[in-house]
Amino acid sequence: MPDLDAVVQEIAAEMAQRSDRGEVAHYIPELARVDPGQFGIAVVGTDGAAAVAGDGDLPFSIQSISKVFTLTLALGMIGDRLWRRVGREPSGNPFNSIVQLERERGVPRNPFINAGAIAVTDVIVSGHQPRESLGEILRFMQFLSRDATVTIDAAVAASEKRTGFRNTALANYMRSFGVTENPVDFTLGVYFHHCAIAMSCRQLATAGLFLAHGGRDPETGFSVVSAERARRINALMLTCGHYDGSGEFAYRVGLPGKSGVGGGILAVAPGRASIAVWAPGLDAAGNSHLGRIALERLARRMGWSIFG
Amino acid sequence: MPDLDAVVQEIAAEMAQRSDRGEVAHYIPELARVDPGQFGIAVVGTDGAAAVAGDGDLPFSIQSISKVFTLTLALGMIGDRLWRRVGREPSGNPFNSIVQLERERGVPRNPFINAGAIAVTDVIVSGHQPRESLGEILRFMQFLSRDATVTIDAAVAASEKRTGFRNTALANYMRSFGVTENPVDFTLGVYFHHCAIAMSCRQLATAGLFLAHGGRDPETGFSVVSAERARRINALMLTCGHYDGSGEFAYRVGLPGKSGVGGGILAVAPGRASIAVWAPGLDAAGNSHLGRIALERLARRMGWSIFG
Amino acid sequence: MPDLDAVVQEIAAEMAQRSDRGEVAHYIPELARVDPGQFGIAVVGTDGAAAVAGDGDLPFSIQSISKVFTLTLALGMIGDRLWRRVGREPSGNPFNSIVQLERERGVPRNPFINAGAIAVTDVIVSGHQPRESLGEILRFMQFLSRDATVTIDAAVAASEKRTGFRNTALANYMRSFGVTENPVDFTLGVYFHHCAIAMSCRQLATAGLFLAHGGRDPETGFSVVSAERARRINALMLTCGHYDGSGEFAYRVGLPGKSGVGGGILAVAPGRASIAVWAPGLDAAGNSHLGRIALERLARRMGWSIFG
Amino acid sequence: MPDLDAVVQEIAAEMAQRSDRGEVAHYIPELARVDPGQFGIAVVGTDGAAAVAGDGDLPFSIQSISKVFTLTLALGMIGDRLWRRVGREPSGNPFNSIVQLERERGVPRNPFINAGAIAVTDVIVSGHQPRESLGEILRFMQFLSRDATVTIDAAVAASEKRTGFRNTALANYMRSFGVTENPVDFTLGVYFHHCAIAMSCRQLATAGLFLAHGGRDPETGFSVVSAERARRINALMLTCGHYDGSGEFAYRVGLPGKSGVGGGILAVAPGRASIAVWAPGLDAAGNSHLGRIALERLARRMGWSIFG
Repeated sequence: MPDLDAVVQEIAAEMAQRSDRGEVAHYIPELARVDPGQFGIAVVGTDGAAAVAGDGDLPFSIQSISKVFTLTLALGMIGDRLWRRVGREPSGNPFNSIVQLERERGVPRNPFINAGAIAVTDVIVSGHQPRESLGEILRFMQFLSRDATVTIDAAVAASEKRTGFRNTALANYMRSFGVTENPVDFTLGVYFHHCAIAMSCRQLATAGLFLAHGGRDPETGFSVVSAERARRINALMLTCGHYDGSGEFAYRVGLPGKSGVGGGILAVAPGRASIAVWAPGLDAAGNSHLGRIALERLARRMGWSIFG
Repeated sequence: MPDLDAVVQEIAAEMAQRSDRGEVAHYIPELARVDPGQFGIAVVGTDGAAAVAGDGDLPFSIQSISKVFTLTLALGMIGDRLWRRVGREPSGNPFNSIVQLERERGVPRNPFINAGAIAVTDVIVSGHQPRESLGEILRFMQFLSRDATVTIDAAVAASEKRTGFRNTALANYMRSFGVTENPVDFTLGVYFHHCAIAMSCRQLATAGLFLAHGGRDPETGFSVVSAERARRINALMLTCGHYDGSGEFAYRVGLPGKSGVGGGILAVAPGRASIAVWAPGLDAAGNSHLGRIALERLARRMGWSIFG
Repeated sequence: MPDLDAVVQEIAAEMAQRSDRGEVAHYIPELARVDPGQFGIAVVGTDGAAAVAGDGDLPFSIQSISKVFTLTLALGMIGDRLWRRVGREPSGNPFNSIVQLERERGVPRNPFINAGAIAVTDVIVSGHQPRESLGEILRFMQFLSRDATVTIDAAVAASEKRTGFRNTALANYMRSFGVTENPVDFTLGVYFHHCAIAMSCRQLATAGLFLAHGGRDPETGFSVVSAERARRINALMLTCGHYDGSGEFAYRVGLPGKSGVGGGILAVAPGRASIAVWAPGLDAAGNSHLGRIALERLARRMGWSIFG
Repeated sequence: MPDLDAVVQEIAAEMAQRSDRGEVAHYIPELARVDPGQFGIAVVGTDGAAAVAGDGDLPFSIQSISKVFTLTLALGMIGDRLWRRVGREPSGNPFNSIVQLERERGVPRNPFINAGAIAVTDVIVSGHQPRESLGEILRFMQFLSRDATVTIDAAVAASEKRTGFRNTALANYMRSFGVTENPVDFTLGVYFHHCAIAMSCRQLATAGLFLAHGGRDPETGFSVVSAERARRINALMLTCGHYDGSGEFAYRVGLPGKSGVGGGILAVAPGRASIAVWAPGLDAAGNSHLGRIALERLARRMGWSIFG
């Protein structure tokens, strides 16, 4: 087994030298200002080991990575009834496509495309004020990352709200079919805010550790979800976690993962480690360009692919 | 670790008692006549162990499962140039959809939907007579299954050819974009015939063993593909192997797999075993109903999920 | 030439006896309460003749028929620049489809599908308060119908606003592409209200008279639009005026027309007459069932088809 | 009333001077060789007047214009039963799209897109040898154009057959749903050949005269179809005759018309004249660029728009 810390440092050094960095997301004004030269990585093992390199302690906008955690919360609230409102299949379309919704009567294909994550957020919002729901999500993130300083970047949330016409379209569209039930403004408000949570790679990798360890925190033994549910969330990340680049990510990296347009990716090596990388530049499918390459190298050098 | 043989017998017994069996594929007349009461299973371990139960030694039409092996062959012939003609993403559409082809200029989304498999077959056909190409595919299957008696069911092939208007449409459509290059009749002839290969669960599980063992036959050490290519084929099976039910299969079973409308499924537990199940009745997405349930139980009882 | 008044009375009598009446629109609660047994018709000739029968003097919700007049207004404001924001082709999709918008970057196919009419309304709203824009539209309708009592049914407008999630989706979707420019709430507010204008067949037929008379009011000679623009609006009504039933309407009736989900249809016999019919029950494409049949009979008996 | 002959000469002169000529269809090799500098026009009045200018006596490949006549023939054979196999709505898609066929179970939207015309041809083929069906179509064209020298350009037909993969896809696709019934090769053979009929503008305008005169030849009084059927064919030409440019043609020209990728357009001024124009260069929607402009001018100068 290669030395994890050495591999992580090595990869950070390699990434620092690359000039191909993709394009920073420009449709959210606040994100468009981020320096594309940054790169962070953090690996937290189920054995307690941790390796952090580059900008791995700098907070960034986790964006859609939050969808893994809101899915976890919503499943905890209503269990498999969630699947009446959202499917479990890859979409075959870009992350913000509305075409599939028309064909399938407002039911989004999976919880990781925008429409699906809005439907999941709507479940969390049910019966609560937006402020309460948001508080619950934030506390969950602080708890999982063992860090009470995790917070929401209000400027990013406001920026998304101001420019989120397409997400507003998706939300209203689903509401027209009764797939969501709460006032569209409530649900979208919570959605825009949990996407604007800011975390470092170290915090994020820690937060995802339960997915690599049968649903439990390996340090405290606290059970976040059952082992079966952890496996299933991993399966959904693998098939749907990278929008219309999910097949490519599985093919190249071979680990369950979820990307965000902030340039972060959370990946899970079951039984071994939780990994977070961050590089703001995106590829054509909206996933972190260097983030994916870094994970590909890490998985190969550590022999962590789930595919053999 | 539970006893493999006991688990396999147990599952076969459980399946024999179920009355929910799905519907036998009716669009290929020869397949419509198959008795839906049959069920077979075979598990071949990378350690040489084998467990077979039910109708696990009865040959059935492997249909689309052949696409795993034609993909392997075509990659051996032209390597990554194959990916100029076919993508690596889940389709988000039924197995025989032509919609995506129009949107993406004739390039099928992945090698496991019908259009993609026809494009892969076209690569194998290039520069050869159909008869030679077909011979090569058949010999490859005999070699991998260590059984020279594996053969093609000519009646099934003829039945598909007579009624294969939709596949003929797909093939001509891709040809119009130059994605395929050979005479449409040549390519389709080979395609219909390799889908009509008949194998038992035991033969099929043996043939897939290299995918569970880093690309090599564990008995002889013969290398079929590199370890990396084996991993990548597994990744493709996981994200795309069950048409528009691929997400569901990953979610429930947690193993790479490829189904066929004959009711067979080949699944791979990396590092552990190659598995073949067969139950002719299909679910709405065209995958074996009991086959999937049997694999779900096997993976859970043996602890073989790749997701933790 | 048959006697117009006799033909109109005859058709009203025939329609009164039919039991096939289609289904009243149920997605707008206020409209769902309308009595499907009603039928009205009014024909106003370019020669000043008028024939009214049945409930031809009862006001009903003109709904999408208002789109003919908002199009006329918007063309008067910005002329052919309007066509940068909306197309002139039949959509091949239901009236509230969003699929086409995704494929064509937010530009609706024509001004008569919901998305297109919202884009047209957005032009009228530009630079004004919603209340002013709405006032302008209403005054235009009063002027054209020569009746200052024409008004907006506030209950219907409120009902649409409360339940108009799908239109809200369309509006936000176009806004995300910059096809519309004003606050979505402003534009939708005006849209919901002009769709809620209530008019009788007599008022509506009078309002449409300029389209049958080279763009001018035949009584006063006042020019509403140029003769060419009148022809072009008629052409758009013929190809796009009945959503995905436009081909059928042209085939059966042979006159330019625009339907609304309130059960009204405005039709134009160029050089001869403006016609309004009203029967609340709709067919599968969302067009008045008896309204279409009545117009088919009128066109045939009067020899008014534009197709020979 | 302006002098028809003067107007026609004038338009031919204007067209000769234009340098914007569109692009000659390149996907049929034989058509790609045609000189884009040619322009022909012929107007045949219901009163017997005829005006021909430019290359109006040169034969060209009528291509899809033949679909008007095969529709007429098929309606004569099986009447309104034809509409079980093909719709009457504009498609909202390019002429050779297959997307709509998947959504609507193999039933093409109208008889003038490629799929619809193949379905219509399949009706004509039923119960006959391809050679007989083709003979019938050709004799019909000779009869209508009062010219027994009209013939099929075998080189064009062969060229289409060799490269017609997309039409072959459409035909097989419909066959898979049972929308067509005859051997795909038979139907396609006849289809490719009737599209390859070569006619001059003068011959074509003569052939279409019955559509401008209530279904009858004004000279002989011979009734080709009923007046109602003539109107209905005109309506279909208006809504569907120019593929995804039908709305535009109605908007600009205001006459029923049918275009072909050979650069011809047949247009009908009901009660007045039948018109054929030919200019090989096409616009983006596949319709003759100068042909449309010439018709727009003719309709305006003669006051022939059906819209007022």
